[in-house]
Amino acid sequence: MREVPEPELTCWEPPTYTVDANGKVVGGAPGPIHNWGRWGDSDQRGTANLLTAERAVEAAALVRTGKHFALGLPIGGLAAPSHRGEPLHLFQIATGDAILTGAGTDGADDYLVMALQGTTQLDGLGHVGRGNLMYNGFWSGLVTAGTGARRLGVHHLATGLVGRGVVLDVARAQGVPWLEPGFPITAALLDGTAEAQGVQVRPGDILFVRTGTVTHWYERFGSRTAPFQRLGDETARRDLLDGPEAGLAWDTVAWLHDHDVAVLGVDNLAVECRPAQPGHTWIDFHVAALRDLGLPLAEVLDLDGLATDCAQDGVWEGQCAVSVLPVVGAVGSPINPLFLK
Amino acid sequence: MREVPEPELTCWEPPTYTVDANGKVVGGAPGPIHNWGRWGDSDQRGTANLLTAERAVEAAALVRTGKHFALGLPIGGLAAPSHRGEPLHLFQIATGDAILTGAGTDGADDYLVMALQGTTQLDGLGHVGRGNLMYNGFWSGLVTAGTGARRLGVHHLATGLVGRGVVLDVARAQGVPWLEPGFPITAALLDGTAEAQGVQVRPGDILFVRTGTVTHWYERFGSRTAPFQRLGDETARRDLLDGPEAGLAWDTVAWLHDHDVAVLGVDNLAVECRPAQPGHTWIDFHVAALRDLGLPLAEVLDLDGLATDCAQDGVWEGQCAVSVLPVVGAVGSPINPLFLK
Amino acid sequence: MREVPEPELTCWEPPTYTVDANGKVVGGAPGPIHNWGRWGDSDQRGTANLLTAERAVEAAALVRTGKHFALGLPIGGLAAPSHRGEPLHLFQIATGDAILTGAGTDGADDYLVMALQGTTQLDGLGHVGRGNLMYNGFWSGLVTAGTGARRLGVHHLATGLVGRGVVLDVARAQGVPWLEPGFPITAALLDGTAEAQGVQVRPGDILFVRTGTVTHWYERFGSRTAPFQRLGDETARRDLLDGPEAGLAWDTVAWLHDHDVAVLGVDNLAVECRPAQPGHTWIDFHVAALRDLGLPLAEVLDLDGLATDCAQDGVWEGQCAVSVLPVVGAVGSPINPLFLK
Amino acid sequence: MREVPEPELTCWEPPTYTVDANGKVVGGAPGPIHNWGRWGDSDQRGTANLLTAERAVEAAALVRTGKHFALGLPIGGLAAPSHRGEPLHLFQIATGDAILTGAGTDGADDYLVMALQGTTQLDGLGHVGRGNLMYNGFWSGLVTAGTGARRLGVHHLATGLVGRGVVLDVARAQGVPWLEPGFPITAALLDGTAEAQGVQVRPGDILFVRTGTVTHWYERFGSRTAPFQRLGDETARRDLLDGPEAGLAWDTVAWLHDHDVAVLGVDNLAVECRPAQPGHTWIDFHVAALRDLGLPLAEVLDLDGLATDCAQDGVWEGQCAVSVLPVVGAVGSPINPLFLK
Repeated sequence: MREVPEPELTCWEPPTYTVDANGKVVGGAPGPIHNWGRWGDSDQRGTANLLTAERAVEAAALVRTGKHFALGLPIGGLAAPSHRGEPLHLFQIATGDAILTGAGTDGADDYLVMALQGTTQLDGLGHVGRGNLMYNGFWSGLVTAGTGARRLGVHHLATGLVGRGVVLDVARAQGVPWLEPGFPITAALLDGTAEAQGVQVRPGDILFVRTGTVTHWYERFGSRTAPFQRLGDETARRDLLDGPEAGLAWDTVAWLHDHDVAVLGVDNLAVECRPAQPGHTWIDFHVAALRDLGLPLAEVLDLDGLATDCAQDGVWEGQCAVSVLPVVGAVGSPINPLFLK
Repeated sequence: MREVPEPELTCWEPPTYTVDANGKVVGGAPGPIHNWGRWGDSDQRGTANLLTAERAVEAAALVRTGKHFALGLPIGGLAAPSHRGEPLHLFQIATGDAILTGAGTDGADDYLVMALQGTTQLDGLGHVGRGNLMYNGFWSGLVTAGTGARRLGVHHLATGLVGRGVVLDVARAQGVPWLEPGFPITAALLDGTAEAQGVQVRPGDILFVRTGTVTHWYERFGSRTAPFQRLGDETARRDLLDGPEAGLAWDTVAWLHDHDVAVLGVDNLAVECRPAQPGHTWIDFHVAALRDLGLPLAEVLDLDGLATDCAQDGVWEGQCAVSVLPVVGAVGSPINPLFLK
Repeated sequence: MREVPEPELTCWEPPTYTVDANGKVVGGAPGPIHNWGRWGDSDQRGTANLLTAERAVEAAALVRTGKHFALGLPIGGLAAPSHRGEPLHLFQIATGDAILTGAGTDGADDYLVMALQGTTQLDGLGHVGRGNLMYNGFWSGLVTAGTGARRLGVHHLATGLVGRGVVLDVARAQGVPWLEPGFPITAALLDGTAEAQGVQVRPGDILFVRTGTVTHWYERFGSRTAPFQRLGDETARRDLLDGPEAGLAWDTVAWLHDHDVAVLGVDNLAVECRPAQPGHTWIDFHVAALRDLGLPLAEVLDLDGLATDCAQDGVWEGQCAVSVLPVVGAVGSPINPLFLK
Repeated sequence: MREVPEPELTCWEPPTYTVDANGKVVGGAPGPIHNWGRWGDSDQRGTANLLTAERAVEAAALVRTGKHFALGLPIGGLAAPSHRGEPLHLFQIATGDAILTGAGTDGADDYLVMALQGTTQLDGLGHVGRGNLMYNGFWSGLVTAGTGARRLGVHHLATGLVGRGVVLDVARAQGVPWLEPGFPITAALLDGTAEAQGVQVRPGDILFVRTGTVTHWYERFGSRTAPFQRLGDETARRDLLDGPEAGLAWDTVAWLHDHDVAVLGVDNLAVECRPAQPGHTWIDFHVAALRDLGLPLAEVLDLDGLATDCAQDGVWEGQCAVSVLPVVGAVGSPINPLFLK
């Protein structure tokens, strides 16, 4: 057999901290901007707590035309962006099989093998930590392959994320179909976009920021129905996936906290700007949002249809319902958010 | 190697029909109660067409308290009913791995392998046909393993099923925690329950019928956190899964059509009563609902929390949003419907 | 959503050891009977080292009739024992699809989703450790979801396990079709069986011990072609899977070491006797075999056809070839060992 | 939701043939060079029937040094060629988890999700047909998603493919490290190579033909340990996978039949030369080999180590054992053939 390189090893020393019976790292501390303890020491839902019943009532009142928009990308059928390989859809039995087998009823069952982060999806609060700390001081070691997420599982968000949805179409406000890869969306730009659109971001909002990245993707690959691995122009595809990406700048962490955003969704792969801005590394934003704020992040959204409608009628708000699959102990879930106007 | 029995074969003769360029069986006809052609010859959404924008606005107005209920069963974590084996949740990397590998950021990615009919789910219109016919006359042969559902894929329902939700708690109206397995819920009983509850079923409703089957399930197995295959009381479990089941009687097909129900959901495994009533075979109801009416069926729902709340405040209606994963060419989707009051 | 019980947590303190740059726990020590260091400090193959070229030549000379036996159970098609759920076999495209799609060539592709420990399989040396130690002193922490087995991956055994195979049919020697569940096979009984059969166990042998457990299994369930979850007699099945099981007694650890067995295979689920003998806990044998001896274990073998042939011709030895899938960093592999006489 | 293009449909007419109770198309006929009926009308093993016991004895006598070679590519760990996406290896529990959970024993279980044609593998006789005919006249419609391969399942080959192995290193005989993509290996070239090597191909041989394609692959990508989708040079990779490929020319079909080759293995993706030679289309060779001859094809082999050894000692034959996973009703199996000299 051909030789396979051995993974490199380094010396290992055990951590110096201990973990208490509540799963908290003793002495663990968040970054400067955070929500730890805000909803109690045992809270596992973070800013989803901002989605109160009162706000749900107000949000429902925003439904005026009955138009609704689904914000998930198709799974299969079109080339789609993913770092993790496309979902695999297979049949255990196909409806047409009955024609060949003589079964009296034609029935089908199908299976899906998917990375829970492999298409339009929500990052749960167990998805990213740093310094062995996750949201609210929970220990990263609570998430193992064998146990799943013993705390902060995404099923804690599956009771329904419902509230006012707001769209900030930064690309459109800049007059471009998509922001250039690497473009950092600053807090000032969010404010400017909101002002230009005549909409306010309020506490408890489910906020969608449009970069145009998915637009860009489909502009180049959208007419192709072959899956990723069959595309000819792979180099270009890799540029889109692994190269720079327009996204939120570091200073939006404070802005999101100040505005008490409940859920943040972006039409790019990883919400934050890549490469990171000077003084930061990629994933810093994830750490600040997920670990410190407890802010669930929705990624790979398709905001094009919704944003076009908002631009036409000038209404950038609506009722939003995000249904999370209650996979117990998971760190993410595929989603297909519904936005009603 | 141990000998494996060969599958039995029989002679095969080709079908006698042809299929036109629209995928329709030439000369194909539905059962007596049907919606074929009602929304056009090319329609692939069936009664989901009844979920109009106007009704969506009316439904939003039903949100008065902001209370909301998620109707999906947990995936993992608890024993759960399924004919198809439980979803398999696996980690590609766990957040806690960083403690052992020294990675600077703690991050996790997880995968799900699931039967799309393996938990709370929606049967799409490609799921069941008969006589090689599916909804609106489409040919069953359009659904093969290699092509997926070339028509009637569940993604056509993924634009969002939103409207008025209504609960008919038949078990509670009968004064029992659950209907006996095999109990047929007739049209008259649906009417009686609606009257007893003081609620009306209207065209375009997303209707939920509670049998108490899932309640029964959890009464017996709910405190067990081990997955199915680890349960000791397997025989009892099989009784619940494969034995008789309370569900809708045959005469509700006409009732559902008369009331123009848009989506039907039940808290049992297969919506319809098992065994079938005299003169019918099991799955007849599926054929009538999916193939003839084009009525999507939601199965394995957990209506307990919602129904308890409705019984307390006497309000059996609300706004309902069913988010379907847009798996292109699939015949079903896991769902976690949200019901707001 | 129905409440899911939270996993219980306990306080955690970090380990007190360190790990060196070779992945070894500093100060780690094996049990009293072991092979650590015997084939060098960096060895990852354990007793597979005993399968020398010289012995491979001798083994080939044992092929006298050309009869050969495959020792794997069928995957699907028959009820089969497993703790982990049966493999899932699905089609991406079926040969018959072409009849329905008009494709010019009829072709099929299929997928398998399987627990690498879910059928006839080989436990690699990364499969079980204790005290955070694995074979040769490697640290258990080298095996994470994210990295796979950074050392002791089963691919190190995939160069081919080839040598003399020997069968000890303990059940037959005891005059029974199968040993009673819980029956401990002692070293003395292995010796007695070898003597009764007139065969010797030699250094570097691939040793198969027959308990009749799989025979018992098929006696009860073999004619059923439905998969596990469809079986009616689940309680009986659970007895077979989770109840007591005939297997190797604790004192065979020393015997296996004395005889320098290279690979050990048994026709039961877990090689060792369950429940464990007094003074031991279940899995102790696994720890001694895999961690201390570095002895790969083959499980869920089907020895019936081979043993019957051996009983008929009185020849209990042959050439054996075990082909391991080279899954890099895996801790096990499905196998279908070939035994030639 | 973004619109997904509908698959194009065409009119469909039913086949004009019937199928008898043995699964045979009435009136079906093979190509001019074939083995239909040679081993009986119900035969499902094709040329594997040539692997007789007598030949197995002769093959064992070829083991002279005890050197052995495993011909499978690593699964994971290295970039590897595949049309179907790489196997997915995931952990249900990792050995190192015990360090974080305090479990007394450190244990791991892992899963594999793999295309059975996704790495070094054997095409079974149900893999490819044409004209709705498979080997020995079996109907393609016997292979559906719901039934698997009702005949010609790969498990019929899982009793063990054992015999004399012969290597024809065409690339080396041509004095090149690899044959140029698109290079057709003719019957004359096989004869010339055999003569140059001083080896004869005999009836019942397991024949390996080396093109150097895998050598070429690793020359360009072998030092990369990232999986496919992470490679930067995707365009080059696609050239290797989907572009022209050196392989067997059409006239070798007759040659393989004349020589009664039992199993054919090649170190490329699809055995046959791509593009096909004038007058043929790609996959014609597959049809002739699998459907007409009943000749199982082993693909994506790694012959480099073996061929180098053969060139050094001038011995191009040995004993070969191909262990097939007994996946009932499958059309292929991963393999890791063992070759002993």
